[in-house]
Amino acid sequence: MLDLNEYTITAEVHRRFAGAPDLRLREILTALVQHLHDFAREVKLTEPEWMTGIEFLTRTGQLCSNTRQEFVLLSDTFGLSQLVVAQSHSREEGVSEQTVFGPFHVEEAPKVAGLNSDIAKGATGDPLYVSAHVLSAGAPVAKAVVDVWHADADGQYDVQDANWTIEKSRMRAVFETDADGRIGFWSVLPKSYPIPTDGTVGEMIRATKQSSMRPAHVHFRIRREGFDTLVTHVFANGDTYLDADAVFGVRSSCIGNYESRPPGIAPDGRVMARHFFTLDFCFVLEPALTC
Amino acid sequence: MLDLNEYTITAEVHRRFAGAPDLRLREILTALVQHLHDFAREVKLTEPEWMTGIEFLTRTGQLCSNTRQEFVLLSDTFGLSQLVVAQSHSREEGVSEQTVFGPFHVEEAPKVAGLNSDIAKGATGDPLYVSAHVLSAGAPVAKAVVDVWHADADGQYDVQDANWTIEKSRMRAVFETDADGRIGFWSVLPKSYPIPTDGTVGEMIRATKQSSMRPAHVHFRIRREGFDTLVTHVFANGDTYLDADAVFGVRSSCIGNYESRPPGIAPDGRVMARHFFTLDFCFVLEPALTC
Repeated sequence: MLDLNEYTITAEVHRRFAGAPDLRLREILTALVQHLHDFAREVKLTEPEWMTGIEFLTRTGQLCSNTRQEFVLLSDTFGLSQLVVAQSHSREEGVSEQTVFGPFHVEEAPKVAGLNSDIAKGATGDPLYVSAHVLSAGAPVAKAVVDVWHADADGQYDVQDANWTIEKSRMRAVFETDADGRIGFWSVLPKSYPIPTDGTVGEMIRATKQSSMRPAHVHFRIRREGFDTLVTHVFANGDTYLDADAVFGVRSSCIGNYESRPPGIAPDGRVMARHFFTLDFCFVLEPALTC
Repeated sequence: MLDLNEYTITAEVHRRFAGAPDLRLREILTALVQHLHDFAREVKLTEPEWMTGIEFLTRTGQLCSNTRQEFVLLSDTFGLSQLVVAQSHSREEGVSEQTVFGPFHVEEAPKVAGLNSDIAKGATGDPLYVSAHVLSAGAPVAKAVVDVWHADADGQYDVQDANWTIEKSRMRAVFETDADGRIGFWSVLPKSYPIPTDGTVGEMIRATKQSSMRPAHVHFRIRREGFDTLVTHVFANGDTYLDADAVFGVRSSCIGNYESRPPGIAPDGRVMARHFFTLDFCFVLEPALTC
């Protein structure tokens, strides 16, 4: 069609998608273009603003690497990630809630670590002993694969170090629950931290005078055949930023007590000459839907 | 705010933008997030679909270089570019119409070329002599800076050659109109061609079974102080794809006659031993709005 204007063009783009054999793809693209066009018309987007957007998206893509996902961070700070998580999991009462995945997970994480191993590997922070229990419908879930990852006392993930390699992973490990559905490990106490602000998301955060802070947390991903995979955090009770998470991810049910302990015997029997912290948290999985 | 769900999260994201000192930025981000969230809710976007989108955008950014702009191409094929162009220029009758910029313009193009120079530099295709006249309100516009760029008979732009450098520019030049508002140059006849389909846009085009073709055209950008910059194409009359441009850019007023000529004397006096083509086109600029 010739001579399309800012109103007639939308139907023509839809017509081009009408031949997509995958009906779900057609549905998604049609809705996406409708909203994109509505947005551009509604704000009467100008050519220089359009170019600013093109350049912003380009730089966002170019910041991504195998250890940094700036588009995930952008989606997180636009609330899109949490929206998709929320509408994808309608949990029954008493089942652990999902929250955002975040940009720092590494799929090819270290091999399964042994019970009570120390995954801090010299990272900065107070010692923390984590004891986690995985249940479903009141029964322990054995042999669940539990990915753990978190930041140090300075708010840094291992992958944010330019020299990071998979062998240099710290505060990052994969565990398997025992017959009682339990794992236990040592690491360091995470602190609240700013999301990375040296990229395009940082530009957006500064331009809108938002806080870049996230409350302290440890990430968990728990997988077991027959159960819906759980991707969640355990946030630190009492953290200043619980109510103002830069990525909108805090659920009340995902807040845990990181308790300060005096020197003495730790839950795994280790004798601690200095004070340390413990976290004891119970995750409840939902059985996977079967067809 | 804690425990945001897929409905309550939108107002919370808007609240975070509310402190942006730049009111236009606030307006744009607020509308963008509203439409992004509405889109995700409307199609009930799933987590795997979200991740497909993240990966698509990431790869789109990473395909961009100083000679390739995949995000511009994506915007073009989504009809967004032409929508923004259309709503940015409401031309009076008789003034040249704008169309999309496309992904192949090079800002640091070759220096101003002389009258009747040959910019093809050995590119494949039938010889073409272009004579262009730049007017405004019936009077010639002298010293207008005219960027010209186009593809060869195989549909390739110079910058699509991996070995391209600015010194190797072909079918790409900058001219200045003379006292009569005229430029003239030799090049090769452009042909209809597919947009680049070796990237993410190509994946989208194939998945939706769309045509990737654009009708043959030469790009022009005409700039002169005191006039609204004109970014346009001259499309080839009779081209098969005029009605189905992959980037929605064809305006009736931007169709020109690329006329076949027998061997003989060309408009600039050159004697042609073989047949050639001519294009004679008149551009009409709009005076810039003054405050």
